[in-house]
Amino acid sequence: MNLKRLSILGVGLLGGSIGLAVKSAISGCRVTGYGHRSASLQHALEIGAIDDAYAEAGPAVREADLVILCTPVGRFESLLADILPTLPPSAVVTDVGSTKQSIVDLAEKSLKRTQFVGSHPMAGSEKRGVEFARADLFQNALCITTPTDQTSPKSLAMVEQFWKTLGMRLTRLSPRDHDRLLSDVSHLPHAVAAALVDMQEEAALTLAGKGFLDTTRVAGGDGGLWRDIFLDNRANVRASIQKLKDHLDHVLTMLDKEDGAALQVWLDRNAKRREDLVRQKLRETTGE
Amino acid sequence: MNLKRLSILGVGLLGGSIGLAVKSAISGCRVTGYGHRSASLQHALEIGAIDDAYAEAGPAVREADLVILCTPVGRFESLLADILPTLPPSAVVTDVGSTKQSIVDLAEKSLKRTQFVGSHPMAGSEKRGVEFARADLFQNALCITTPTDQTSPKSLAMVEQFWKTLGMRLTRLSPRDHDRLLSDVSHLPHAVAAALVDMQEEAALTLAGKGFLDTTRVAGGDGGLWRDIFLDNRANVRASIQKLKDHLDHVLTMLDKEDGAALQVWLDRNAKRREDLVRQKLRETTGE
Repeated sequence: MNLKRLSILGVGLLGGSIGLAVKSAISGCRVTGYGHRSASLQHALEIGAIDDAYAEAGPAVREADLVILCTPVGRFESLLADILPTLPPSAVVTDVGSTKQSIVDLAEKSLKRTQFVGSHPMAGSEKRGVEFARADLFQNALCITTPTDQTSPKSLAMVEQFWKTLGMRLTRLSPRDHDRLLSDVSHLPHAVAAALVDMQEEAALTLAGKGFLDTTRVAGGDGGLWRDIFLDNRANVRASIQKLKDHLDHVLTMLDKEDGAALQVWLDRNAKRREDLVRQKLRETTGE
Repeated sequence: MNLKRLSILGVGLLGGSIGLAVKSAISGCRVTGYGHRSASLQHALEIGAIDDAYAEAGPAVREADLVILCTPVGRFESLLADILPTLPPSAVVTDVGSTKQSIVDLAEKSLKRTQFVGSHPMAGSEKRGVEFARADLFQNALCITTPTDQTSPKSLAMVEQFWKTLGMRLTRLSPRDHDRLLSDVSHLPHAVAAALVDMQEEAALTLAGKGFLDTTRVAGGDGGLWRDIFLDNRANVRASIQKLKDHLDHVLTMLDKEDGAALQVWLDRNAKRREDLVRQKLRETTGE
């Protein structure tokens, strides 16, 4: 891929990993980084994730061909306002936000028609901060782009080529479908994991086994990040919670009827559905 | 530990692993095994988990000092009836069932006052069958014994010594507390994992990441086993589901109020509580 100037706004786990991955995958690309914590910027420079560090976003994008918003989603609005005066008209802007509808709406209002493409690279970890950045973080992971009727095909092609160069698999969804499906399969499980921890008596936790630790692993993530996701996607998260409650009511009904046959069919069906999913994911992440 | 004759009724993953563990930890102990599938019995003989195989339970316990019920819980009643005529008066009986109240009630009705001690060795895997048996399955795992005012201290000491010899850590709970706490920390997470799989659209599953696979891992377990657990412990599982629904309603309330501060406090508190738990479990399983 031919990319001369990349600007990473926010050098945490994702921003830092993008820098490292670009350095190993795209030769001759100069990477500028913006961050509000000077220690993170310094660390990003030291590990070679960025070439130039800026404490303000405006100057960091002045010569960029591609700009990636990597700060928490809650800061995107002021970030877009900050870069508007210096953003080259030819630059393409994307992001790594975990929700898409509000971000796409916001960016399409702020930027020129051809400039924005929403991205959600589904890579990360419970770890936080540039000190956990890895060049292979994106390898074989899925990246969702969320084009709209406003999106320029050329900008979309560039952004998709970029993630592909970093080793990602690609899929497209509307921002609306993205937020609805991710609410069910990612945001809800996070809320459930936290609720499962919250509801336990101390005496129950002393009996917790590996199963409980697995089921609740995602609850270990960063509270601020997830607060933003829940608030931003609250209509979908509400619907997901309601959907789960309905399914739990179905379990209650089977228990009330002492309907062992129905319970076993339900348990076996979901065990098999998950097994199939594990096999499918394994095929995907090992390159099929 | 001095144990001459052990009888394992049900040679699956747990029964087979007990046999292997006994063979490596207790010298001079003869192990008889009962199973209704001849292929499992044959496999148990071949790997050295048992010395003698019986297709009926009665003859398998004839000379036993200790008998362990390892079949699915739903078969305990007929199993106890089958062994009653041949069980030596001095033999102690325990089990590996995941629920305790109904089993302890049943066994205390069937057997002599001094004979039964309820056990729940918390070891296992989603795998099923004697072909997955391992001598170290119980190493550093927790075993809950559930003595009642009917339990003989001598029999309790013997059973606890047995699990300890297999490498287990021990704790005691009343059958009632056991079933209530395990419902919250084990049975409910299983139901939730299955419900989380069940509620997903196919399109959402294609977006599932490692987080979703972790959260739902326990849903991969054996349907028949979990049907029995849910039915047997249905009053507690009902209460656990209701408790979780109340906690999810609390999340809905925070979302309705768009109360970001409360959401973050809630998320951070549960992330921390889980982290503390992980550290505690790590200390326990590495021997402190």
